Amino acid sequence: MAFAEPLQLQSGAVLRDYRLMYETYGTLNADKSNAVLVCHALNASHHVAGYYADDPKNVGWWDNMVGPGKPLDTNKFFVIGVNNLGSCFGSTGPMHANPATGKPYGAAFPVVTVEDWVAAQALLADRLGIDQFAAVMGGSLGGMQALAWSIMFPERLRHCVVIASTPKLSAQNIAFNDVARQAILTDPDYRGGDFYEYGVVPKNGLKVARMIGHITYLSDDDMAEKFGRKLRGIVENGVAAQGKYKFGFGIDFEIESYLRYQGDKFSEYFDANTYLLITKALDYFDPARLHDGDLAKTLAGTKAKFFLASFTTDWRFSPERSREIVQALLCNRREVTYAEIDAPHGHDAFLLEDARYMNLVRAYYEQVWQEVQKKEGA
Amino acid sequence: MAFAEPLQLQSGAVLRDYRLMYETYGTLNADKSNAVLVCHALNASHHVAGYYADDPKNVGWWDNMVGPGKPLDTNKFFVIGVNNLGSCFGSTGPMHANPATGKPYGAAFPVVTVEDWVAAQALLADRLGIDQFAAVMGGSLGGMQALAWSIMFPERLRHCVVIASTPKLSAQNIAFNDVARQAILTDPDYRGGDFYEYGVVPKNGLKVARMIGHITYLSDDDMAEKFGRKLRGIVENGVAAQGKYKFGFGIDFEIESYLRYQGDKFSEYFDANTYLLITKALDYFDPARLHDGDLAKTLAGTKAKFFLASFTTDWRFSPERSREIVQALLCNRREVTYAEIDAPHGHDAFLLEDARYMNLVRAYYEQVWQEVQKKEGA
Repeated sequence: MAFAEPLQLQSGAVLRDYRLMYETYGTLNADKSNAVLVCHALNASHHVAGYYADDPKNVGWWDNMVGPGKPLDTNKFFVIGVNNLGSCFGSTGPMHANPATGKPYGAAFPVVTVEDWVAAQALLADRLGIDQFAAVMGGSLGGMQALAWSIMFPERLRHCVVIASTPKLSAQNIAFNDVARQAILTDPDYRGGDFYEYGVVPKNGLKVARMIGHITYLSDDDMAEKFGRKLRGIVENGVAAQGKYKFGFGIDFEIESYLRYQGDKFSEYFDANTYLLITKALDYFDPARLHDGDLAKTLAGTKAKFFLASFTTDWRFSPERSREIVQALLCNRREVTYAEIDAPHGHDAFLLEDARYMNLVRAYYEQVWQEVQKKEGA
Repeated sequence: MAFAEPLQLQSGAVLRDYRLMYETYGTLNADKSNAVLVCHALNASHHVAGYYADDPKNVGWWDNMVGPGKPLDTNKFFVIGVNNLGSCFGSTGPMHANPATGKPYGAAFPVVTVEDWVAAQALLADRLGIDQFAAVMGGSLGGMQALAWSIMFPERLRHCVVIASTPKLSAQNIAFNDVARQAILTDPDYRGGDFYEYGVVPKNGLKVARMIGHITYLSDDDMAEKFGRKLRGIVENGVAAQGKYKFGFGIDFEIESYLRYQGDKFSEYFDANTYLLITKALDYFDPARLHDGDLAKTLAGTKAKFFLASFTTDWRFSPERSREIVQALLCNRREVTYAEIDAPHGHDAFLLEDARYMNLVRAYYEQVWQEVQKKEGA
C-alpha cells in the first residue's frame, strides 16, 4: 500500500512518502468486525502464515498460530500482517531510495519507534476501511505494538493480545542490543550505513549481532538439553574421532556450530540498518515514560480486553515483566486473562508449538469470535 | 622465572622455553608450610595485591582479599600470584617471540588449558622449593585452577579455595565465549592473529568481546539498580535536556555509555590473542570428561580440604554449579565448607567487598593458619 502523504515521526523527522507491505488471510466480514492485526517482532515480516504458490518453503513465521483451523482461525477472522517501516521485507526501509537524494537511505533512514509503526498501521487500517480490530496481537516486540495500540487508539481494538513482552527494556536488554549494534557499526563493511553503494554487506557485524541475540532467545536449560557440551568431533587419519578437542579457534562444540550457522544465515538476508533501527525501537519503547514511569496511569485510557502470556524460562522478557502489565491493568479494573506457561524454550517459546499455550490462545479467540458473531447478529 | 626445559602441553604442542611472571607477598616460613597460591581469572595477572612504589595507582586485582591484615593475611601467609602462560602481563604469550621464527607467536601460540597452567605453576612451586601449599585459591577461572590442582597434585595442597566457579562451562557460557571470539576473529585488524607485525590492534573486536563478557559478569538486578533506563541526556541550544532520546545510534542510555567505556578501556590494554586463548581454556575445562562426566569419580583422588563460595545473583556460574562440586566432594567424604552468599553483584561479586563473604574467607584462613602453626610446632 503506497502512502503519498508524509508521515510525521516521533523523532521529529518526516517520511515524505512510504509503502507498507502487508498480507491478509481469511475474509473480512460485512460489518468489518472480524479483523485481527498481527504485529511482527525483530526479524519477521508481514508474511505471518501460509506459503506462496511459487515458494512453498517460505512458510509464515507464525504459521502454527494463524491459519484455517489454527488458534487464530482464518476461517473466522480476517488476519492482517504488516511489515514495519524501516524493516527489510518490502515496506519502506533503509535500502530504498531516499526521495531527497535518489540514493538508498542507509543510515539516513529516520529512527522509528513502536509508536510510529502503530501510527502507520492505523493509516493502513483506515485504507482498508477497518475502524476497529477484533484484536491486535503480537509477541515480544510485536506485543509492544499491541500494547501501544491499546494506549494510542483505545477505541480501535476490542482485544489486545500481548505474548512474551514487556512494558520496557531493562538495562540488561539494552546492553545486549547495544553490543549487537556496536558489532555492526564497527564492521568496516558497514561504511557508515551506506554499504549498499559499495556492493558490500557488514556480514561479520550482523553475524555477531545475531549470535548475541540468539543466545538471549534460548533458555540456559534448553541450550543445555539441546547442545550441552557436545563436540562436533574431528577426523583423524580419515576416521572420525569423537570427544576430542581441536585446540584451535575453529568449532569444537555443537553450540558453536549452531550459533555460527544461525549468524551466517541471518547475515545473508537481513539488513544491517534495519537491525540497528529495530533494536533502537525496542530500547526506546517505554510508554510509561510520559507518565513518570507510572504504568497504571499509562494504561488508564485503554478500553480493550487483554490476553497476556509469558513463559517461565524466558529470561529476555521474563514473566515478571508481563506481570507488571497485568498489575497495571488490574489497577485500572481492565478485564485481563493472563497465562504463565511452564515451557523450556526461553523467549523463543512464543513462536513454538506448545499444546497448553496454543489451546489457551485458541480458547481466547473462540470467545472473541463469539463476540464477533453477537455483533453481527445485533 | 625463566624455564629452559620444554613444556609439553595437553594439545600435544610443546613450548620450547618460557617465562612465568610472578609476585609474592609476605614471608615464606622456615618449613615452607605457609605458602598460598592465588590463581587469576580472565583478565587479571600475577599482580594480586598492593601497588608498586613507582605506580601507586596500579592496585592488585584482589587487594581487598590479600594483604597485611586482610582475609588472606600476608602477615601470616606467603602468597604467590602467577601470570598464566598465554596471558599478556609478562609470562610467555602470543606477543612474545616464537623461538622457531623470531617473530611474535600471534595465533601460532599453542592453545593452553587450565591443566597446562597448573602444570606450569607446579614447576614454579618446585623452583621456589614449595612442596605443598597451605592453600591454592581462585575465583571463577582461578577457581578452576584451584580445583585442577586438587585433582592433578592432591598431595601438594592442604586446602582448596574455589570461589564463584564451576566444574565446566554450560552451553550458554560457551556460546557467549564463542560470540566474543567471533567478534575478534572477524575484525580485519586481527590479521589472522599477526596484527603485531602490522602495528594494528583489533580494538573493535576486543571491545565487543569485552562488552559481551561484562554483561555476563553483572546481575540483571544490579544493572537495573545502577543504570536502569537512565539517559545521558542531550544538550539543546546550549542547555542540557534531560530525559530525551537522541534518535540516532550514538549513546542514549547510561548503560551504553558504561559498557562502551569498559570495552574501549579493555581494548587499550588487553591482547586479542590472549582473549581467544583464555576463553578456550575456559571452554575446555571439564575434568570429569575423562571419567564419563562423573565428577565424584573425578574428585575421588583429592586430599585437600575444600572451601567453596558462590553468589546468589551470579548467572554466569550460578550457585548450582558450585553445589555440583560440593555434592561430588561429599560423595567422597571430603571435608567441605560451602557458603552461598546473598549478594546483588552477579559474578563480579567475588572481586567485591562484602562483609559476610570476606569474614567467611578470613575465618577459613584463620583455621588454615592454626594448622600451619601446629605444623611448625610439631
